[in-house]
Amino acid sequence: MCRWLAYSGEPLRASAVLLDATHSLVAQSLDSPMGAETVNGDGFGVGWYPEGAVAGSIPAVFHSVEPAWNDENVRELSRSIESPLFFSHVRAAAGPPIQRTNCHPFRWENWLFMHNGFLAEFAKVKRDLTFAIDPSLYPHVTGTTDSEVLFHLAITHGLADDPVAALTAAVDQVERVGRDQGVLFPMQGTIAVTDGATIWALRYSSQGRSRTLFHSRDVPTIREMYPEAERLSQFGDHAQLVVSEPLNDLPGLFIEVPESTIAILDREGYHHEPFRSAA
Amino acid sequence: MCRWLAYSGEPLRASAVLLDATHSLVAQSLDSPMGAETVNGDGFGVGWYPEGAVAGSIPAVFHSVEPAWNDENVRELSRSIESPLFFSHVRAAAGPPIQRTNCHPFRWENWLFMHNGFLAEFAKVKRDLTFAIDPSLYPHVTGTTDSEVLFHLAITHGLADDPVAALTAAVDQVERVGRDQGVLFPMQGTIAVTDGATIWALRYSSQGRSRTLFHSRDVPTIREMYPEAERLSQFGDHAQLVVSEPLNDLPGLFIEVPESTIAILDREGYHHEPFRSAA
Amino acid sequence: MCRWLAYSGEPLRASAVLLDATHSLVAQSLDSPMGAETVNGDGFGVGWYPEGAVAGSIPAVFHSVEPAWNDENVRELSRSIESPLFFSHVRAAAGPPIQRTNCHPFRWENWLFMHNGFLAEFAKVKRDLTFAIDPSLYPHVTGTTDSEVLFHLAITHGLADDPVAALTAAVDQVERVGRDQGVLFPMQGTIAVTDGATIWALRYSSQGRSRTLFHSRDVPTIREMYPEAERLSQFGDHAQLVVSEPLNDLPGLFIEVPESTIAILDREGYHHEPFRSAA
Amino acid sequence: MCRWLAYSGEPLRASAVLLDATHSLVAQSLDSPMGAETVNGDGFGVGWYPEGAVAGSIPAVFHSVEPAWNDENVRELSRSIESPLFFSHVRAAAGPPIQRTNCHPFRWENWLFMHNGFLAEFAKVKRDLTFAIDPSLYPHVTGTTDSEVLFHLAITHGLADDPVAALTAAVDQVERVGRDQGVLFPMQGTIAVTDGATIWALRYSSQGRSRTLFHSRDVPTIREMYPEAERLSQFGDHAQLVVSEPLNDLPGLFIEVPESTIAILDREGYHHEPFRSAA
Repeated sequence: MCRWLAYSGEPLRASAVLLDATHSLVAQSLDSPMGAETVNGDGFGVGWYPEGAVAGSIPAVFHSVEPAWNDENVRELSRSIESPLFFSHVRAAAGPPIQRTNCHPFRWENWLFMHNGFLAEFAKVKRDLTFAIDPSLYPHVTGTTDSEVLFHLAITHGLADDPVAALTAAVDQVERVGRDQGVLFPMQGTIAVTDGATIWALRYSSQGRSRTLFHSRDVPTIREMYPEAERLSQFGDHAQLVVSEPLNDLPGLFIEVPESTIAILDREGYHHEPFRSAA
Repeated sequence: MCRWLAYSGEPLRASAVLLDATHSLVAQSLDSPMGAETVNGDGFGVGWYPEGAVAGSIPAVFHSVEPAWNDENVRELSRSIESPLFFSHVRAAAGPPIQRTNCHPFRWENWLFMHNGFLAEFAKVKRDLTFAIDPSLYPHVTGTTDSEVLFHLAITHGLADDPVAALTAAVDQVERVGRDQGVLFPMQGTIAVTDGATIWALRYSSQGRSRTLFHSRDVPTIREMYPEAERLSQFGDHAQLVVSEPLNDLPGLFIEVPESTIAILDREGYHHEPFRSAA
Repeated sequence: MCRWLAYSGEPLRASAVLLDATHSLVAQSLDSPMGAETVNGDGFGVGWYPEGAVAGSIPAVFHSVEPAWNDENVRELSRSIESPLFFSHVRAAAGPPIQRTNCHPFRWENWLFMHNGFLAEFAKVKRDLTFAIDPSLYPHVTGTTDSEVLFHLAITHGLADDPVAALTAAVDQVERVGRDQGVLFPMQGTIAVTDGATIWALRYSSQGRSRTLFHSRDVPTIREMYPEAERLSQFGDHAQLVVSEPLNDLPGLFIEVPESTIAILDREGYHHEPFRSAA
Repeated sequence: MCRWLAYSGEPLRASAVLLDATHSLVAQSLDSPMGAETVNGDGFGVGWYPEGAVAGSIPAVFHSVEPAWNDENVRELSRSIESPLFFSHVRAAAGPPIQRTNCHPFRWENWLFMHNGFLAEFAKVKRDLTFAIDPSLYPHVTGTTDSEVLFHLAITHGLADDPVAALTAAVDQVERVGRDQGVLFPMQGTIAVTDGATIWALRYSSQGRSRTLFHSRDVPTIREMYPEAERLSQFGDHAQLVVSEPLNDLPGLFIEVPESTIAILDREGYHHEPFRSAA
């Protein structure tokens, strides 16, 4: 069910993490060591804020339904995008069709959103959850995934004002509607959302057995650990990543985000808080 | 906003009307003389019942998002399909994205449906109309077009039991919801629907200025009119078509279906009835 | 590098082997137990002769660049094709780009051809081999794969008159040109070719370590082995397959074709001959 | 047979000319007022040099086979690309298939190339011209268009050393090989080529009736002509374009490039020279 990564820090060429790593996101599209599915060939997306973007800047988004591993456009764009904050995602479809409107990240105003996982038995809950989206937002849902519905629920619940509260309320609603319909474990997955400045990354599942999620150690520490690593020179001191799984096999670079946790990456660096669904 | 054709009669190779006519449907994809848009390059579809199909047989459906005029698969399939009843459609998108799930004809059980036209200001009415679809049918809506919503409204209103009444009720609902939202002329277009035996084709618009619709004259009469026409030999005596526009420039072959009319093509041949929306 | 299957016998619905088997060809596109690559998501093709086709009939061909595992068109067509002889192929690209013209099977007049494997270091030999294609055939090469060049070399060497001699001459040429360019093991793979009546299937590699190839045991014997197997009822007594790998895990149904062998499937059933490259 | 534009000058957001003009290149994809074909829906491409690129920088290239008019990726990228020199092209295929490798602009090292027109009766001359390409370049031809062959002939004849002489030699070769094969008018079209600093644009046809070509008047003069035009503010004083046809209907902005002429756009501005084929 998908793999993703989110980057913030000094402007970085996207290819550094999308292409040029042992388990780069494009490599994970064909072979994901830790994924619930090995192959994530049902769509690719990248959303990025331009260099020098100010608060409220609208990110650009590129989506492709081709498998990322052989998509020339993905290679070209990854090498030409240089950005202080970007999201990228490869999809393994769990039902909803392969089409550009079902590719992550999704965008709303200056926000980006992506998801690895699912709303269980989506056909059972889709109508109630879709109905719960604010009517003024309803026409903005252009695809047919559970993930896009979840995003619009979070917007409905005030994402722009209080992201953690809004994600909590959206997940609560998924839990509640799911259980009303007899779904045992309604929610599964990891979610990343950003306003262009801060990244919030949630790891949560009803069952308490969530998809994997990792964050990078701070770069100065990594430099001390691996003083010979030339590739590190392209990363600035404030570079930070949150990823579905480590991008390489070097010990200590990536640290697991605990279950039921919301990770926050901002100018101060990384921290996290427990995530509690009221449902 | 699209062009379509529907055929019934003796099993016919689909290429006879999709490829091998002056204004074949594929030719209309690039250049439609009578269309609201000249170019219908935003998707292609064909749905067909197999030879020897019995009542209730499920038709096959092929959809492609490539422009039909240069799509090799369309050529290959058109030449290999031989069918007693088929629908085909080329799309000019009026908003909803270019994706296979937005290509006509749509299928539900043994039924096919296609549409040329639009529900005006669809963003305004989409939510109300979508939630008027029977909840058990709701998960079956896989695309994002106005046309697919209209089809599912007709199913909700009893298409399988009384197609004319169901289409009337669906159009009434579109008129009513549209006017409630301040839409001046909510409905525009021509619709074809079939259960695999009978074709119902509606020409209707709120404004009384509907997209073009024609039906073919009966073949024995055409043979008398054009005794030298060799191409006629591939059509049986019961071959009949209803089309967005004539497939060639020969006078007398195609006859306009009047405004606000529902045409019915069955084993008895062609007849039509006035169509009246209660709204 | 790809997986394929070839069927001949009583007219069969293609879905029986493309979709409805444990290791159906579409299942192999996502997960091929015996393939050199696990994932074959870089293109799909099917070529089929119609029921009642006579000698020299041109087969229909459908090609798609989407991964087969989630391609709705592949499902629809597989269920609607009923044919006495068809080829189907899923591709794992080894360099040449993902495009319809690089999808197998390739067609020339009434012939179909497909290949699993490669001409080693193709960039080194491509020009000489392409130059060796009969100039009148040269414009008929529409893609950029090694496989299509190999097919056209076989045609150049008289495929229509003596298929075994022509395949031998083509492979010889590949061996010779490869070695002239310093390629250690120029040829690798399995090839299937048909004129619509007989299937020739070659398993050969310069190194003597060829891609896997199997043929089905005769159906009457299988019925004795598995008298309870209901799925067998859809296969006629003359049904026979040659496949990159077994379509299911039942012991005894599929028999390995030996190294350096050309298998021949015709009305008499299956037999094979040693294949000897002169080079 | 295609439409294109080439820009150089102060870094410009590509959407200014690809999207935001009456006859923007994307608008021309659906409706080209001066094109040999009205519809150019068989592929889109853009190639661009990054801001701050130095001599020899490799441009990025994006190609899509979807019609540009409804391609969301084209919109997103056009708005995110800011470049001092870019090429863009919409294709109307004249035979070679719709695939990314047949989309212009083509790239070789730091060079870009695009073409509107054709080599007449390409099937007759393709083999001779393809084998005239330098053998070391031969594997670099990844598509199947006449245009890409022409580009590689120009490289073979020394494009990097003397672009005008190389283009002349390539066109001479096309004329000569064509006439040897009995082709009356072998060459038709307009060509743009760049090394990232200078743009060379050729208008030439054997018959002396070439596809249209225009260049923009210098911006300071345009500002005097249209002092109220707000859109001009996004263009710098050194902005210059060469285009298949004018991007808007304002008189005097675009000036026709004469027949049999090679236009040169560099830091000094625009000038042109007569183009003479020796053949």
